[in-house]
Amino acid sequence: MVSRVLNVAAAQVGAVDRDASKEDTVRRMVALLEDAISQGVQLVVFPETTFTTFFPRFLFDDPAELEKYFEQGHDITNNDGVKQLFETARRGKVDLYVGYAERADDGRGFNTCIYYSGHAGRTLSKYRKIHLPGTRDPFPDPEAINQLEKRYFEPGNLGFNAFRAPGLVPDASKKGTNAKASIGNGDPIMGMMICNDRRWPEAWRVYGLQGVELVLVGYNTPYNAPHLFGFRKPMSVEQAEKEAYYHHKLVMEANSYMNACFSISAARAGFDDGKYDLIGGSAVVSPNGYTIAQAKGIGDELVVAKIDLDDCKQGKETTFAFERHRRTEAYGLITWQTGVVEPELLEPDAP
Amino acid sequence: MVSRVLNVAAAQVGAVDRDASKEDTVRRMVALLEDAISQGVQLVVFPETTFTTFFPRFLFDDPAELEKYFEQGHDITNNDGVKQLFETARRGKVDLYVGYAERADDGRGFNTCIYYSGHAGRTLSKYRKIHLPGTRDPFPDPEAINQLEKRYFEPGNLGFNAFRAPGLVPDASKKGTNAKASIGNGDPIMGMMICNDRRWPEAWRVYGLQGVELVLVGYNTPYNAPHLFGFRKPMSVEQAEKEAYYHHKLVMEANSYMNACFSISAARAGFDDGKYDLIGGSAVVSPNGYTIAQAKGIGDELVVAKIDLDDCKQGKETTFAFERHRRTEAYGLITWQTGVVEPELLEPDAP
Repeated sequence: MVSRVLNVAAAQVGAVDRDASKEDTVRRMVALLEDAISQGVQLVVFPETTFTTFFPRFLFDDPAELEKYFEQGHDITNNDGVKQLFETARRGKVDLYVGYAERADDGRGFNTCIYYSGHAGRTLSKYRKIHLPGTRDPFPDPEAINQLEKRYFEPGNLGFNAFRAPGLVPDASKKGTNAKASIGNGDPIMGMMICNDRRWPEAWRVYGLQGVELVLVGYNTPYNAPHLFGFRKPMSVEQAEKEAYYHHKLVMEANSYMNACFSISAARAGFDDGKYDLIGGSAVVSPNGYTIAQAKGIGDELVVAKIDLDDCKQGKETTFAFERHRRTEAYGLITWQTGVVEPELLEPDAP
Repeated sequence: MVSRVLNVAAAQVGAVDRDASKEDTVRRMVALLEDAISQGVQLVVFPETTFTTFFPRFLFDDPAELEKYFEQGHDITNNDGVKQLFETARRGKVDLYVGYAERADDGRGFNTCIYYSGHAGRTLSKYRKIHLPGTRDPFPDPEAINQLEKRYFEPGNLGFNAFRAPGLVPDASKKGTNAKASIGNGDPIMGMMICNDRRWPEAWRVYGLQGVELVLVGYNTPYNAPHLFGFRKPMSVEQAEKEAYYHHKLVMEANSYMNACFSISAARAGFDDGKYDLIGGSAVVSPNGYTIAQAKGIGDELVVAKIDLDDCKQGKETTFAFERHRRTEAYGLITWQTGVVEPELLEPDAP
């Protein structure tokens, strides 16, 4: 029997200022990656839009200024300023997930991540963020912190496509082990999300229906932006911070449990420009819904865990054996209807 | 502006033995209901199959013996042995949710609950459990504790239909307030689930898409049935108990948060026949995903909370404003496909 134990890590990246040089940031990422390689880690998850500050908080009047935050082209792994990361992965035979703002060849913008296999020396999969939060237009209040992802990005057009990553589990790719007959065997099955996606159970379930064993998520999560969250009740900064961590942990644990998969989440954390707050909380969560490793701070930090993919089997074969328990005839509204349609009050029968 | 504050309660019911008389059990339920009425509670949630022990743990050879655990007919509110409960609700003008095993007029069995309005003096809605857990056939091991819901019940055929409950919020039913234009106003919008349904995000989302403000769930959750859960790793009784509570709390909190609704869950708890364990943990959870009231023990216990339905609005208008953020084009698999189809390994390009 093939052992399916992996060494994995979330590579949390602390503050990245608005004017930080990409070279400096990538140098920090390479240092985290080399640390991971030296610890025998096989898969490293970096955050969302890791190469720059989280720029959707700003409104840019000058298109050229905005463009500095984007990576150009279909394949960025040879782009100046970032290729060092992928070279390091290749040399260390480590796989990585990394998020970046993508300017596609046709000019469209996406909030994107790729899975790069250091073993195979190539990108195995690309995901473009589907659940873009925030607004298209800035808040009228000039002091407000914006969240303009709907302005700068189009909703992802690549779906939630799970994929297998070869090279992590020795001998897994041998003939037959990736066949349908061997649910939960063979090369690890990965799914990628970005930030806000993790709050949407639909994203998790589409991956769950592909037998996902590891969900990878990079994120930028601010906690003290009252305009953004529309707080009805006044809340202290401390409360807002605690709540943002709580919700992050809650959705990672619950959705990992309900899909019987591991998850790795990596934060762009800290105080960008010394003032824009982002939570840490990078974590590895088990298919049983427990956080098994978690970042201690809000700076650059590697969160390492040893996981056994076979731990997914209990959930997938019992409580969450989809084939036996799901009732799709009752789920129609999920795909038919985007927004809310409230029921009307039924009038009682005439007396 | 209409105040939409409600007093609600979960009515946890402790051990009910295999040979308990229905009259005795209903007497305990009436006592809980009268306690609730005396405290000004407006809505009380009772557990799943509350009138009898949780009989799907047994295999019955004698059909007549099985039948003792079912309530007969389309409308049970006047049935001998249980009608006292509904009379009390009518007299006290309190609404209730209660679960029972239903033998429909055509002979089919369902795991059912109804919402009975003490204000209106009638049943407003019926739900039949859609996610039946367990197996059809008993385990070969005669010592095993079974879970034969798939044997005794058919999957519910009434869908997840949210409904409005009039009479709880004064003046809410006045013309116009239940119209589409007034999202989150008018009479409270309710959704009902039973036990295992709460672990299925599809159930919550279908209600969420109907603007649900209060999800009501009765449950029976054993914790030390290794055959049932297929534990791969040996686990002590204490661990199993802790884990069952953890998962219950996790799914109630996360799904309430992800649908920006309150939820009330009520356990049939305790040690039936002094040996079959069931968790307590009856709780009220806020739309922000926090448990705000919880049972202290595993016996008969009323868990009361004062909730403001307008607290649902923050989530429904910002993070979980479905109309703005959901992307149904990416969710197709959820309704197209029941079980898991794993991806195959993509062969790398020829060198």
